[in-house]
Amino acid sequence: MPEDLSLAMPAPQTSSLLDRVIANIRHAWRGDGDGSIADRLKPDLPDADLAALRRQIDACLEGPGGEVSARLRAADLARGYLRLNDQGRRRFLLHLAERYDIRERDLNAAVTTYSIADSGPAKHAARAALAEALVSPRVKLLTQFNGVEYGVRFLIELRADLRRFRKEDPELADLDRDLHKLLAAWFDVGFLELQKITWRSPATLLEKLIDYEAVHAIGSWDDLKHRLRGDRCCYAFFHPVMPEEPLIFVEVALVDGIAGNVQKLLDPALPEMDSEQADTAIFYSISNCQPGLAGVSFGNFLIKRVVDRLRRDLPNARTFSTLSPIPGFARWLRSELETRGEAALNGGEHSEIKALSGNDDAATGLLALLERPDWYKDTEVTEAIRECMIRLCGRYLCSTGDKGRALDRVAHFHLANGARVERINWLADTSQRGRNDSFCMMVNYLYEHREIESNHEAYHGEGRIMTSPPVRRLAKGK
Amino acid sequence: MPEDLSLAMPAPQTSSLLDRVIANIRHAWRGDGDGSIADRLKPDLPDADLAALRRQIDACLEGPGGEVSARLRAADLARGYLRLNDQGRRRFLLHLAERYDIRERDLNAAVTTYSIADSGPAKHAARAALAEALVSPRVKLLTQFNGVEYGVRFLIELRADLRRFRKEDPELADLDRDLHKLLAAWFDVGFLELQKITWRSPATLLEKLIDYEAVHAIGSWDDLKHRLRGDRCCYAFFHPVMPEEPLIFVEVALVDGIAGNVQKLLDPALPEMDSEQADTAIFYSISNCQPGLAGVSFGNFLIKRVVDRLRRDLPNARTFSTLSPIPGFARWLRSELETRGEAALNGGEHSEIKALSGNDDAATGLLALLERPDWYKDTEVTEAIRECMIRLCGRYLCSTGDKGRALDRVAHFHLANGARVERINWLADTSQRGRNDSFCMMVNYLYEHREIESNHEAYHGEGRIMTSPPVRRLAKGK
Amino acid sequence: MPEDLSLAMPAPQTSSLLDRVIANIRHAWRGDGDGSIADRLKPDLPDADLAALRRQIDACLEGPGGEVSARLRAADLARGYLRLNDQGRRRFLLHLAERYDIRERDLNAAVTTYSIADSGPAKHAARAALAEALVSPRVKLLTQFNGVEYGVRFLIELRADLRRFRKEDPELADLDRDLHKLLAAWFDVGFLELQKITWRSPATLLEKLIDYEAVHAIGSWDDLKHRLRGDRCCYAFFHPVMPEEPLIFVEVALVDGIAGNVQKLLDPALPEMDSEQADTAIFYSISNCQPGLAGVSFGNFLIKRVVDRLRRDLPNARTFSTLSPIPGFARWLRSELETRGEAALNGGEHSEIKALSGNDDAATGLLALLERPDWYKDTEVTEAIRECMIRLCGRYLCSTGDKGRALDRVAHFHLANGARVERINWLADTSQRGRNDSFCMMVNYLYEHREIESNHEAYHGEGRIMTSPPVRRLAKGK
Amino acid sequence: MPEDLSLAMPAPQTSSLLDRVIANIRHAWRGDGDGSIADRLKPDLPDADLAALRRQIDACLEGPGGEVSARLRAADLARGYLRLNDQGRRRFLLHLAERYDIRERDLNAAVTTYSIADSGPAKHAARAALAEALVSPRVKLLTQFNGVEYGVRFLIELRADLRRFRKEDPELADLDRDLHKLLAAWFDVGFLELQKITWRSPATLLEKLIDYEAVHAIGSWDDLKHRLRGDRCCYAFFHPVMPEEPLIFVEVALVDGIAGNVQKLLDPALPEMDSEQADTAIFYSISNCQPGLAGVSFGNFLIKRVVDRLRRDLPNARTFSTLSPIPGFARWLRSELETRGEAALNGGEHSEIKALSGNDDAATGLLALLERPDWYKDTEVTEAIRECMIRLCGRYLCSTGDKGRALDRVAHFHLANGARVERINWLADTSQRGRNDSFCMMVNYLYEHREIESNHEAYHGEGRIMTSPPVRRLAKGK
Repeated sequence: MPEDLSLAMPAPQTSSLLDRVIANIRHAWRGDGDGSIADRLKPDLPDADLAALRRQIDACLEGPGGEVSARLRAADLARGYLRLNDQGRRRFLLHLAERYDIRERDLNAAVTTYSIADSGPAKHAARAALAEALVSPRVKLLTQFNGVEYGVRFLIELRADLRRFRKEDPELADLDRDLHKLLAAWFDVGFLELQKITWRSPATLLEKLIDYEAVHAIGSWDDLKHRLRGDRCCYAFFHPVMPEEPLIFVEVALVDGIAGNVQKLLDPALPEMDSEQADTAIFYSISNCQPGLAGVSFGNFLIKRVVDRLRRDLPNARTFSTLSPIPGFARWLRSELETRGEAALNGGEHSEIKALSGNDDAATGLLALLERPDWYKDTEVTEAIRECMIRLCGRYLCSTGDKGRALDRVAHFHLANGARVERINWLADTSQRGRNDSFCMMVNYLYEHREIESNHEAYHGEGRIMTSPPVRRLAKGK
Repeated sequence: MPEDLSLAMPAPQTSSLLDRVIANIRHAWRGDGDGSIADRLKPDLPDADLAALRRQIDACLEGPGGEVSARLRAADLARGYLRLNDQGRRRFLLHLAERYDIRERDLNAAVTTYSIADSGPAKHAARAALAEALVSPRVKLLTQFNGVEYGVRFLIELRADLRRFRKEDPELADLDRDLHKLLAAWFDVGFLELQKITWRSPATLLEKLIDYEAVHAIGSWDDLKHRLRGDRCCYAFFHPVMPEEPLIFVEVALVDGIAGNVQKLLDPALPEMDSEQADTAIFYSISNCQPGLAGVSFGNFLIKRVVDRLRRDLPNARTFSTLSPIPGFARWLRSELETRGEAALNGGEHSEIKALSGNDDAATGLLALLERPDWYKDTEVTEAIRECMIRLCGRYLCSTGDKGRALDRVAHFHLANGARVERINWLADTSQRGRNDSFCMMVNYLYEHREIESNHEAYHGEGRIMTSPPVRRLAKGK
Repeated sequence: MPEDLSLAMPAPQTSSLLDRVIANIRHAWRGDGDGSIADRLKPDLPDADLAALRRQIDACLEGPGGEVSARLRAADLARGYLRLNDQGRRRFLLHLAERYDIRERDLNAAVTTYSIADSGPAKHAARAALAEALVSPRVKLLTQFNGVEYGVRFLIELRADLRRFRKEDPELADLDRDLHKLLAAWFDVGFLELQKITWRSPATLLEKLIDYEAVHAIGSWDDLKHRLRGDRCCYAFFHPVMPEEPLIFVEVALVDGIAGNVQKLLDPALPEMDSEQADTAIFYSISNCQPGLAGVSFGNFLIKRVVDRLRRDLPNARTFSTLSPIPGFARWLRSELETRGEAALNGGEHSEIKALSGNDDAATGLLALLERPDWYKDTEVTEAIRECMIRLCGRYLCSTGDKGRALDRVAHFHLANGARVERINWLADTSQRGRNDSFCMMVNYLYEHREIESNHEAYHGEGRIMTSPPVRRLAKGK
Repeated sequence: MPEDLSLAMPAPQTSSLLDRVIANIRHAWRGDGDGSIADRLKPDLPDADLAALRRQIDACLEGPGGEVSARLRAADLARGYLRLNDQGRRRFLLHLAERYDIRERDLNAAVTTYSIADSGPAKHAARAALAEALVSPRVKLLTQFNGVEYGVRFLIELRADLRRFRKEDPELADLDRDLHKLLAAWFDVGFLELQKITWRSPATLLEKLIDYEAVHAIGSWDDLKHRLRGDRCCYAFFHPVMPEEPLIFVEVALVDGIAGNVQKLLDPALPEMDSEQADTAIFYSISNCQPGLAGVSFGNFLIKRVVDRLRRDLPNARTFSTLSPIPGFARWLRSELETRGEAALNGGEHSEIKALSGNDDAATGLLALLERPDWYKDTEVTEAIRECMIRLCGRYLCSTGDKGRALDRVAHFHLANGARVERINWLADTSQRGRNDSFCMMVNYLYEHREIESNHEAYHGEGRIMTSPPVRRLAKGK
């Protein structure tokens, strides 16, 4: 299975996406009257309709007529699917998963033939037959959809459904894997186009940024305009068959020095700077747009392509860094403090924490302070815990778990890309989410051109997390 | 193996294509100094260089660094390949075919594991492992090229080489099949874009029509302009990653009534008609442009998409027909007459042929007349043999051979698409090629919307060749 | 002087327009250091700066160097102007108007020469000299601005200023006329491009619709999106030198039957209809965008071009009508009722009005009812006065004043274009403005292709207002 | 009158241009049946048709209906004109020139009114009336054509006719001047767009380069492709209403050092250099495309805009020079030698010339040598006369005539633009034309950024021709 991309992903907006797809498909695929399956299936696909469904699927797979006819039949099947309700879709997919899997008997026969074949041409032919037997009918069917207009979009929609149902229907896992493999080949980065999105882009495209932004929500068109002003920029990957659907996009702020506070960055009152003078590009938000493409990795390529582009266009920009959330820190910290108590704090007196919280145990005291409403507005508190919190966060970010993987999923994403942990920022995101997830902390991951390869190697091969010297000291508890 | 597309294909213009690809690649992929394989391989790839080559391939497959690094290494390998001469390339490909095939030992192990696995999760896992073992390292390598700029174009170039070498090196057949499968998935018709090519198109594109036209050569820019005038049109398929490289194109003439003579059709002196008044669209030339995509079927989709487009844009155009060469007729006729003598003529007196040729045997006489220089300009001769020739041609076109396939390869292509044999045209192509291949005859295949499906079925399923009533009578020798 | 376009015009948004112009100009025109006037003038242009200003203007007019240098000097002068405040600009324009008018002495001399010249070449030459003497230096100066980048935009800005100042400074009238003449030639409809604006248009363009809409304000981006949905459309004229600045735009609703209520039309909850089925196109808003182009007539051409376009694209749309405000009705009605009393009502009992208002005089009673807050929500009132109001409105719309011109300025615009008064709609616009201006009434003007010419003639030549038969009866008090 | 642009201009290709214009106009303007003048005029416009023509013109000027109707009538008139033959067109234009001139009587009246008006408002009104009386009806008519589709193109066509007829019909001079003034305003450089033309441009555009190239003919599409290869470039001005019609274009070669031979420059065998390495840009051909725009100056702006563009895009290109023909040299030299004899040679022995020509008089001898066929291939001759010829050419180029204008028209053009005479090249153009016009000599004019202004001033103000030091010495006979 492909790695989890570990980036924020919007909740599937089934209805609106669907409406658009159906509307398009309705326009593109004209069913041919009473032969059409699309008009005959009931929304929840009762048992009585399964036979008709199977006939249509079988016709797609083996039916008469040339390749063109086969694709028209596939189109009709797709329309039929899109008219089903959730219950019907789930049944459709389960049926597809179970009835159109690899044919065990054929496969066993092919295995036997291979095992006993003499080397030479016979062995060779047996090998080909074996490969053929390993291609399930459902994969053949899915492939056919590509040929119909909007077919790829349909498959993305289908997979978004699959991902939703999969949690409760583990039988769908293999079908999901099949579809992932197909989509990963079609959406290979070699086919993607990097585009800059600006305030001159079509509104149809811009409204999707508002829909899909998953890290720091875009509140309004004014907010969006602010994020596309002169010292900001936005890049997205597109696929040629879906020229108006971004696959993933990243928002960048051009600033002087590494930024450490996201509310400041997004403040419309901030005076605009001349982008050509900026020495630093801050990647402050990266959002996947297509739930149906979960697991197809775009993010690493996107960041590197954008760094290349900015390096070329803005000769003064020499530092490329993220300003990233730390989604798992708060949960980890609570658990650490609860299970290990003061030991989690790595020594030290912490007298201020004790005094402020009125608690003899610094671990309990710290947790108590962090549970006070509006603690982050109380300078006395924030000053008292600041150093301790930064040190704890450093330790968290540099900790690895299973298979040498960083505990934090965003950290894992950037480290695997070859970035290093550069700086931890106190009171950097005071939004509700920032407080809940990471006690208002954020981190910068630095993409340093010459180190990317070696950072990646160290992390991937040995599970070593690369950091700036200050963060290294923090992590070592010094 | 995919069906042979059976259409004309230009001779591979290796050098110019190559120059362009290399030039582009040089620009896009900057090797990084002394680590580069591209600069170290000798043009004919002597044995001494094979170890270095293998190291680079292995690095591509398993080397350190992330996906981005892997693709850079692939780019360097591609550059290395492009600098080799034919000898070097052949050795490269043979090496790839032999050393990076499926690993027999791994496959055998996977087969064994599968055979003995208990049903349930173990069987399931064994099946996945079996599928994995069937993916050869060379396929993994080829897939990587997609991610580098111009990588797909490189693979098309590579396959064009493969096709040339394959005749002498049957060991390359499997590699060719692998590459075909990869390209067929990427160039699925669902990803292609149909474009109309006009005299307003960029010269860079138009000069390619001149290069690639494989049926009726385009003699000059004036000739090309004539073929793009108001009552002519030209459509091509493009793939998004190669926006200036047509994959296949078709030339259409808008006329009144089905045209029966290609020289007339191409005569610049022909007065232009108002295309909106034309009742017939004649598809008089269809050319594949990419030898490296041989076997990926575009032609059938192209014709149908163009018919749909014309039907929509030109409401008066109701007849859609080709004016096609009959490449195998002359050879077949000679063989028939030589082996079967007068019996081949299906009875009748043929006294005129005997008289004119001064030959007692009509079969020998006919052959003698057809060997006279400029026979096609001698009205006496052409009138004498006309009827007999048309009947013979009808028989040829309606004959099937192995597996119910039409003898003529162009006939096979159109019949498999659902067209029917509509009309046989005497003295329809008096060019050198027309005389050599088909004794100046041409044929119209008719695409009748309502019959396409059933025609296809009849041909594909039962080997029945559909024809117009007159041709049917001819074929039956009436 | 050109006719007053009589359409709504947005309040000049000096600051934002200006900022954009200056920003652009700053980028395009690089002053060359200390010679630049742009940096030396004080914002309010005190007397002390006038000499420097005159030197720069004179240099523009007669200075050394070729045409290219002359234009650079003009650019610098423009930059200087744009940095002035309102006070400075007014002084600049007054100075230009007074000091750079036609030179009286030269003109008188040319007149004398012409008067005494013998016929033949001498007369001919004198005529040319006379024409030359009638071109003022300020016109020559204004012409030069065209050659600098953004120069045309600058002149539009300059004229917007002029129009503001003119009310208090009648000395500026001639300069305004000069500039109008120049702009009218450059913005001749022959140079304009009609473009459809859709939700796929750039946000930079769409936000201008929100800014410039002057009839029914666009409240939000959602509102805008609603106005660009499938059964709505929007067309604008553009000039090639200002490709992102609409000059005028019209909003159209595609509906079944002539629409009579604008709130309904703009209601986002209205189900969308298939535009291809609509039989009627309603022009419900037309807005000029450039105060600096006041008096250059675009509206009549725009409506006719859009009618042509819709006629071609939507074969089912056969009725083309406006849904227009009646800006002068309320004022006229009050005056009529106050000065003429019941006589204004053209006879009848009006007992309901008297009863409801508790007033013996129907005229006073009607006014009293119309002054009740929320009268338009009170069915009893609206039913009681409905017929009477429609009749009064009919009379108003069909009344002409000076020179046979319709009293209502919007009526005048459409009648002069050849439309006819089709239908009067009661309670058609209950917005604040609708209540204030026309007691909630609106009117449809019908553009009937075959009548446009004759309607225009009747109105223009004889002051006859063409109407539908029902409105004609109303107007005649029947 | 505007200066003569003094650049090469193609012979008017009336027929093809016309066909295109008519074809377009036919499509755009649908006459409305029997009312149409277009269908009623006989091709040679006999006297009998003049009354109908006048009615149509009067209808355009004063006719009923709004502005839209007026323009439709103008369109019909234009169609009528385009269907006339040369004889008819000439009569049309003469009629327009004579009958629709300024109305003498009205003008005289306006002059009188002005003369006797009191100062103040009356004077002011009289002035406006005077200006109005100076606008001829024919100018009003011409202005109307702008509003019809393709109207501007029509006026350019009309003026091309005018220019042809004018030589024999001096009565057309004023009409030509009117039209020039109108076109000059519309084609002001502020409205023009500079575009780079490449081998990727549409063939419709590229074929126009072949048609219009007026200096060094483009022999074929291969030749054209060569002129658009990597180290060549081509820029043109376009007007927004004629997006596919270049107005003027310049061809540039990027080279090392100033080029001195045009055949070498155009030799396709010349290896291509990396344009980014070139230190010099040679403007070797500049051609006006529209005879109907003669006298509207584009060339000076074009050169300067292209220099700016190249300076920005190619940082290594620091020298900007032409390689220009010397069209008047041969004629001047013959005249000099014939009238002044040896004195024309400015002293010296010229013994070689005498010896080679066998002539005692060097002037006669020189002429005799230059009349030998193929003299330029005879090294003995070319060496003998080289120095003498270069000196003579230097003198010619630095000579001014009337009003301080350079004798050579191409010299005048570049000098007025601010260039200087940089280098004279012997045997630089051995084409037929080069031999005939300038005894194979060419000259480089240098555009040195810092000197352009002062060069222009010196030439324009004082008639001083600026040169490089070596040319200065030549011109002084040293």
